[in-house]
Amino acid sequence: MNYFSSDFILGILGGGQLGKMLLYETRKLDIYTHVLDPSNEAPCKIACNKFFKGDLLDFDTVYKFGKNVDILTIEIENVNIEALEKLEDEGVQVYPPTKALRTIQNKATQKLFYTDHNIPTAPFSRFAYKSEIEDSIANGGLQFPFVWKAAQFGYDGQGVKVVRSVKDLDDLPNGECIAEDMIPFKNELAVIVARNLNGDVVTYPVVEMEFHPEANQVEYVICPARIDEAVAKKATEIALKVSNEMKHVGLLAVEMFQTKEDKILVNEVAPRPHNSGHHTIESSYTNQFEQHIRAILNLPLGNTESKVAGIMVNLVGAEGHTGDVVYENIEDILKLNGVTPHVYGKKQTRPFRKMGHVTIVNKDIDTARKIAQRVKETIKVISK
Amino acid sequence: MNYFSSDFILGILGGGQLGKMLLYETRKLDIYTHVLDPSNEAPCKIACNKFFKGDLLDFDTVYKFGKNVDILTIEIENVNIEALEKLEDEGVQVYPPTKALRTIQNKATQKLFYTDHNIPTAPFSRFAYKSEIEDSIANGGLQFPFVWKAAQFGYDGQGVKVVRSVKDLDDLPNGECIAEDMIPFKNELAVIVARNLNGDVVTYPVVEMEFHPEANQVEYVICPARIDEAVAKKATEIALKVSNEMKHVGLLAVEMFQTKEDKILVNEVAPRPHNSGHHTIESSYTNQFEQHIRAILNLPLGNTESKVAGIMVNLVGAEGHTGDVVYENIEDILKLNGVTPHVYGKKQTRPFRKMGHVTIVNKDIDTARKIAQRVKETIKVISK
Repeated sequence: MNYFSSDFILGILGGGQLGKMLLYETRKLDIYTHVLDPSNEAPCKIACNKFFKGDLLDFDTVYKFGKNVDILTIEIENVNIEALEKLEDEGVQVYPPTKALRTIQNKATQKLFYTDHNIPTAPFSRFAYKSEIEDSIANGGLQFPFVWKAAQFGYDGQGVKVVRSVKDLDDLPNGECIAEDMIPFKNELAVIVARNLNGDVVTYPVVEMEFHPEANQVEYVICPARIDEAVAKKATEIALKVSNEMKHVGLLAVEMFQTKEDKILVNEVAPRPHNSGHHTIESSYTNQFEQHIRAILNLPLGNTESKVAGIMVNLVGAEGHTGDVVYENIEDILKLNGVTPHVYGKKQTRPFRKMGHVTIVNKDIDTARKIAQRVKETIKVISK
Repeated sequence: MNYFSSDFILGILGGGQLGKMLLYETRKLDIYTHVLDPSNEAPCKIACNKFFKGDLLDFDTVYKFGKNVDILTIEIENVNIEALEKLEDEGVQVYPPTKALRTIQNKATQKLFYTDHNIPTAPFSRFAYKSEIEDSIANGGLQFPFVWKAAQFGYDGQGVKVVRSVKDLDDLPNGECIAEDMIPFKNELAVIVARNLNGDVVTYPVVEMEFHPEANQVEYVICPARIDEAVAKKATEIALKVSNEMKHVGLLAVEMFQTKEDKILVNEVAPRPHNSGHHTIESSYTNQFEQHIRAILNLPLGNTESKVAGIMVNLVGAEGHTGDVVYENIEDILKLNGVTPHVYGKKQTRPFRKMGHVTIVNKDIDTARKIAQRVKETIKVISK
């Protein structure tokens, strides 16, 4: 198929920041795109060839959208999977394949997948309702503290909570969930794996993530991770094993814990470009968005090595600020060496909302880390 | 002024490939854009916030377009300058400033500027009509060979011709022109200078250009140029002198000859992002398009150093092919290390039309050069 012609249409479900960055690459290669998103203010609305406003969870909307495209991909997992399955049956190429997406969409199913395939992961229990958790605590089957995770539809740190007492359960929704052992870990790591239909597979260097202690959002992504080579090798091997077992097409971002004993446990995966790979735009030979396009179009995969070290700082809405967004001191961070802000174009800020990110690249990772700290201390995402 | 809000509008005259690459950067920073271009198929039509179809050389069209924006910039020099002058008088910020643009737009005026400011350039004569050239040849005032250049509106190698006999003058238009001594040179070099309103100035590393012998278009741009440090220093100093004398705001790409005696002569300049800086997208800490935005918004200028060596190969339409474009073997070049194609999105190819470019980056410049050669030999821009 000739992807570089308007006879070919790539459909993207979701028009947020990931889609926006994906569209830089489709434009670079002149690939014709349709985007579906519920918001008229979606960052993707400009830059795609045709924008469709609609509900990503509605069967008819997703099905109709998908019938008009040749290849369909996602920038968000929360989409109507029944529609995708029907589209796949009817010959639309859907990447990630719906089988992988179904496994990933539900965190309980995802965890069972790991245990079924001998992939190391933190011990957990699955519950259909919150009330079952309370019973399990009462019976001594579940000990505090544990990590509660909603089985479906968590985003931006919602859907995950550390539970230290029965009282912590009060605000949680009563749906399907898991309770996971809390793992004391040294580091959170991630590896992005790319796979095309031919079965070619490449991995990006292991990155290290530092989380905001309260918001449960990544504060810094550091590439390469400052860990032993043996640990990096193990993390890469486990990410590859997940990729091989899932038989995804496109990117798979594999998030892992490095325990105090240097064991690697898989936390969760995302079958699409991921926050842990944003630094690749500036630091890698092939950025993750171009790589995703290469993979889903079954093109040769690109070099995943880094030109220079890269650190990514998330720009999230400051606490106490809701309304029209202002990026305070953005001009000051532009003075710093190797600093590139990415503003997603969301008009309204609210506490902890992902509004953008800043990449810091440098030949020396320690220098990059110091500049990243200054970036974090300088720029503020506030309301007018 | 808050550039990062929809209260602010950046206008771009011209909606071609340079504008398209500029729009990646305005989108990255969420800067609101209007674009004016005569073609409904302009590559910028998607990705700008608002597209206006209209003639760039028509006073009223340019004036009306400019009245609605806060800062106005160009991606092509051939625009109605009287409209820009009126806009500038009325308080619109126009970058490059019209004074610099007026000097540059006309190649005869540009050459006189160099001699007036003691900037080394090849000797030349100025003619109002072609018939004056014929007289000058007859009188012995002009010897073959010389380089004929149209004073205005040359593009893609049109408007420049080596004249070796009276017969070579036959096909040339009868307008204002210059006849320039043909300089036997070792290398063609270029330096991109960025300057903001504050007067901050930075320069990119010197690049070396290899031209296609017939089409008079750049075949390879090589960064850094493989020249002596002393020559690179001299070229940078001369580029800075041109920049200082022109008092441009934004980018100024300065093209130069390195003569056999290692003298540097200024050939011509462009006050905007330039073909000789496309490699910066992949190779530099701050790419030329982001730098142009930083400069015209009077933001701090970014680091111009290279992360890795970069080579740019132009993708021009193959001879004998006119019509719907096909990028033959594009999948093969994606197999090569560090190769990124940029397809501009023009639907029709014709011989020597600029249809895209490919960047090759590598830690080792000689490896990059070898891969660039393979790219050049592999990909073909043909018609269906």
